[in-house]
Amino acid sequence: MQADHPAVSVIGLGSMGSALAAAFLDRGHPTTVWNRSEHKAAPLAERGAHRAATPGEAVGASPLIVACVLDYAALRGVLDPVAASLAGRTLVNLTSGSPEQAREMAEWARSHGAHYLDGAIMTTPPGVGSPEMMFLYSGPREVFDAHRPALRSLGDALHLDTDPGLASLYDAALLGLMWSTMTGWLHGTALVGAEKTTATEFTPVAVRWLTAVAGFLTTYAPQVDAARYPGDDATVDIQIAAIDHLIHAAAARGIDNSLPELLKRTMERTSAAGHGSDSYASVIEALRDPAAR
Amino acid sequence: MQADHPAVSVIGLGSMGSALAAAFLDRGHPTTVWNRSEHKAAPLAERGAHRAATPGEAVGASPLIVACVLDYAALRGVLDPVAASLAGRTLVNLTSGSPEQAREMAEWARSHGAHYLDGAIMTTPPGVGSPEMMFLYSGPREVFDAHRPALRSLGDALHLDTDPGLASLYDAALLGLMWSTMTGWLHGTALVGAEKTTATEFTPVAVRWLTAVAGFLTTYAPQVDAARYPGDDATVDIQIAAIDHLIHAAAARGIDNSLPELLKRTMERTSAAGHGSDSYASVIEALRDPAAR
Ligand SMILES: NC(=O)c1ccc[n+]([C@@H]2O[C@H](COP(=O)([O-])OP(=O)(O)OC[C@H]3O[C@@H](n4cnc5c(N)ncnc54)[C@H](OP(=O)(O)O)[C@@H]3O)[C@@H](O)[C@H]2O)c1
Ligand SMILES: NC(=O)c1ccc[n+]([C@@H]2O[C@H](COP(=O)([O-])OP(=O)(O)OC[C@H]3O[C@@H](n4cnc5c(N)ncnc54)[C@H](OP(=O)(O)O)[C@@H]3O)[C@@H](O)[C@H]2O)c1
Repeated sequence: MQADHPAVSVIGLGSMGSALAAAFLDRGHPTTVWNRSEHKAAPLAERGAHRAATPGEAVGASPLIVACVLDYAALRGVLDPVAASLAGRTLVNLTSGSPEQAREMAEWARSHGAHYLDGAIMTTPPGVGSPEMMFLYSGPREVFDAHRPALRSLGDALHLDTDPGLASLYDAALLGLMWSTMTGWLHGTALVGAEKTTATEFTPVAVRWLTAVAGFLTTYAPQVDAARYPGDDATVDIQIAAIDHLIHAAAARGIDNSLPELLKRTMERTSAAGHGSDSYASVIEALRDPAAR
Repeated sequence: MQADHPAVSVIGLGSMGSALAAAFLDRGHPTTVWNRSEHKAAPLAERGAHRAATPGEAVGASPLIVACVLDYAALRGVLDPVAASLAGRTLVNLTSGSPEQAREMAEWARSHGAHYLDGAIMTTPPGVGSPEMMFLYSGPREVFDAHRPALRSLGDALHLDTDPGLASLYDAALLGLMWSTMTGWLHGTALVGAEKTTATEFTPVAVRWLTAVAGFLTTYAPQVDAARYPGDDATVDIQIAAIDHLIHAAAARGIDNSLPELLKRTMERTSAAGHGSDSYASVIEALRDPAAR
């Protein structure tokens, strides 16, 4: 084991775990791998990985264990029988789950004398290894700092908070942003598509527009923190008027309007709560207050 | 009038029209302005604009007339009485409206011997004049080409199509993307905010994530055009499983879940229509087909 390329064990070789192990191998880490279905280790062994015969052998092979299986129940199924051998080692869990599951797993690791980081992978397997892709971690800062060089082999490693639940919470929040954005884009693509504009024509314009939208988010973030939403540029009431153009244009072209109609109702709730002359950032008040629904 | 800085008249000096006139003045165009409420012309006159006393005087002063008032009805109210003086000139209409209104206005202009472009401004007044901000135009290509140098004083001038309705259609589609994205961001901000993460901490991560999401859109666009949606990375069924983490986490923190629940229903409709193993791009099929609702 070299100090700058510490040994790593990867548990779980699904499409994501295989990508993680490959990235460690590419960066020169001595890499041990284990998967429930053995055959998935073969392509990695060909690239130089050491195949562990059991989860216990994988845990014993490295100071850093990276786990990525289907869910937390599967992870406990794999690790419970070998929990004692984790003592003094670091478990970095990249399995997706809830903040509550992450906190429970951190407590489980602590009770077995292991260091623990919970993580969220903000890319798909082909993006693993690219330095611009975000990997979010939460847990003790010093554990993160100790393993940061190795974790950077996977992508850009960001430490969010000492609370192990934060990476999962961010993951949920960011995926929600992704689904909203992708569905809004598909609705717009269907709308212009009804007039013979292709998705490949529309999308570069949409992507450029997202850069401007990102600027609005950056402007609105301090408004949210201050709970003051000056509507200098565009107010909620102006947006309510404008969304009717979208709803009419889409309805005239036979496109499902559930999404813009929901957005309009949310804006109207915001306006009814006294934010009609405030910026769009004030819509967060309607999302937070169940009584206003 | 200099050939490289042709004279321009701006009709409508609300917050947007005033920004347009200021941008023309800044770039050295002889600029004539008119507004229903006269006093709004004063700050522009101080910066060198010529104040027209009537809409007819404004139209007569320049070969290029840029209009930006509340809506199309207001525009017709201003221009109908002076329609004859538009002959041989170019009217660029940046008032927001529907594709149908744009086409009607183009026909009106044609009937009076005027050239016509319809446009959509993809920024707020403070962004006018920045070369990275998009101004979308539709109408005859040669009219656009003739006035492109002047229009570039306002921002990046993109010609979409000869159909004058396209700029409005794109406008609606892009605003829909904006509202979806902003609401998804606010939902995520409320979620992490419930665990004491500030919007200013979360937003830079969200903005970086949007860059990755833009990459997904670019990957999905040709799938939409081909109506084939290979689910190599993440399938609709995997997204359905993942969105439950978001819904549970948000519900546990008292946050309104109408948006993720709608997104989940839309994904479920997509899966039920046979796209469970396809990519998220296949969701467009559920948006397009009212029968599947
Ligand atoms: N793929 C992505 O784009 C992506 C992105 C971010 C996060 N993630 C997360 O990464 C994790 C893995 O995803 P993936 O895409 O790699 O999924 P996958 O290809 O379906 O692989 C699932 C892995 O979990 C293992 N597994 C399932 N049940 C098990 C059990 N009871 N005991 C032991 N091992 C078990 C599988 O082993 P077998 O091979 O024996 O079945 C396999 O290694 C998930 O939590 C996912 O949400 C994935
Ligand atoms: N602001 C933005 O961020 C933005 C962005 C993109 C597009 N737009 C579009 O730009 C257009 C103007 O928006 P704005 O922000 O400048 O609005 P605004 O500040 O409210 O200004 C409205 C303008 O319309 C004029 N007007 C209204 N009714 C009229 C009538 N019956 N006859 C003559 N003039 C009339 C007003 O004249 P008075 O001064 O006499 O009232 C004023 O010049 C709208 O279509 C808007 O959707 C705005």
